Amino acid sequence: MRPVDGGDVRALVFDVFGTVVDWRTGVAREVARLLDDRVGAGAVDPLRFADDWRERYTPSMDEVRTGRRPFVPLDVLHRESVDEVLTAHGADDVPAAVRDALVLAWHRLDPWPDAVRGLRRLSARFVLAPLSNGGIALQVALARRSGLPWDAVLGAEVVGAYKPDAVVYDSAPRLLALEPAQVLMVAAHDSDLAAARARGLRTAYVHRPDEFGGLRTPPATDPDADLSVTSFDELADRLGAA
Amino acid sequence: MRPVDGGDVRALVFDVFGTVVDWRTGVAREVARLLDDRVGAGAVDPLRFADDWRERYTPSMDEVRTGRRPFVPLDVLHRESVDEVLTAHGADDVPAAVRDALVLAWHRLDPWPDAVRGLRRLSARFVLAPLSNGGIALQVALARRSGLPWDAVLGAEVVGAYKPDAVVYDSAPRLLALEPAQVLMVAAHDSDLAAARARGLRTAYVHRPDEFGGLRTPPATDPDADLSVTSFDELADRLGAA
Repeated sequence: MRPVDGGDVRALVFDVFGTVVDWRTGVAREVARLLDDRVGAGAVDPLRFADDWRERYTPSMDEVRTGRRPFVPLDVLHRESVDEVLTAHGADDVPAAVRDALVLAWHRLDPWPDAVRGLRRLSARFVLAPLSNGGIALQVALARRSGLPWDAVLGAEVVGAYKPDAVVYDSAPRLLALEPAQVLMVAAHDSDLAAARARGLRTAYVHRPDEFGGLRTPPATDPDADLSVTSFDELADRLGAA
Repeated sequence: MRPVDGGDVRALVFDVFGTVVDWRTGVAREVARLLDDRVGAGAVDPLRFADDWRERYTPSMDEVRTGRRPFVPLDVLHRESVDEVLTAHGADDVPAAVRDALVLAWHRLDPWPDAVRGLRRLSARFVLAPLSNGGIALQVALARRSGLPWDAVLGAEVVGAYKPDAVVYDSAPRLLALEPAQVLMVAAHDSDLAAARARGLRTAYVHRPDEFGGLRTPPATDPDADLSVTSFDELADRLGAA
């Protein structure tokens, strides 16, 4: 682990789902709100619904990553996969307008409790941007909902490719007019960080033990990252933010 | 002029040079700072330098717009055109590092006095983004310098094309997941607004009489725009922002 004190880093780019926001309980809350009246309270388990939807996330992006289909924003992939999840949960009679509304569940996720506080501290010193597979409208909605102090929205839709495609990681220093080593990628997923590191970015791992509600146990640290932290407060401390 | 009360508008996108920031006095200030020691105080007239540099703006982008060269960010075009301006002003002996620094003059422009106050009011109600020919790093620098409350950075570099190419205007509703008529383009230049209107965006003209330091006199209003205002305060008033 190389030492990083923030002195040479100019910008921080963030994975969002699981790293900044708690997608699981947020999606489950919206699923409960939108489906309870439709399918009878209790007929669909909202947390299992959220988990099953998330399971389809990587396969749906792989269709784009492998070139089998042209790039479409994540909202389009979510709109397709929600149909599969509804069928799997025996809720085939849900009308299209509700399916469209379910897609917007991913625009209404709450940040982890430390996230906004840590980002505000980091914003005073560093350029901050999401580098997510979520689209621009989605990131804008999340940021306006919670006050995430992004300076710009980078990520998949800006370049028409999904992480871990190298072009996404390369776009962060290029579009911010920085060297790759001046950009620190922050994520709760070591695979994301490994892909960022392969493109020359610095990396910080954030331990988010509750992302999968205990169904998966993320490692406490990423020994290959420049930093491993347990919160954005600690990230701000370690990077010398006031 | 159709009535616009802000009720159906969800996002405002802004021209930046001349509309949000005062490029002329800002560039002149940086030119004076960077060149005075080099070429002898008074040898270069900073305001004339700024005007001459701006004169090369449209022709340099036309090289890209017509397909004669691939897209490069505005910083690259500014780096090329500053060489021409320096020669025209008899300052050929300026070293490359100073020329690079001059390009960053466009990252250090101050907003018009009403701009930040008006944008903050508008931000409470509308999604706000620059839709400028300036690049992402430039917009981030301007926003961080002055506290411009952008929700995202849209514009030329995001789509690899320069206004008035239709693809730039089309990208604003597409990337914000809105209909064109839900997006209001704000600019101090009627040609920019005409191009936006041709793509279905609503338009608001802002009178910025000092943009060209009196060398050109912009019209007081744009009769083809949905709104004409004299400040972002008035824009916020007219759109019902608190």
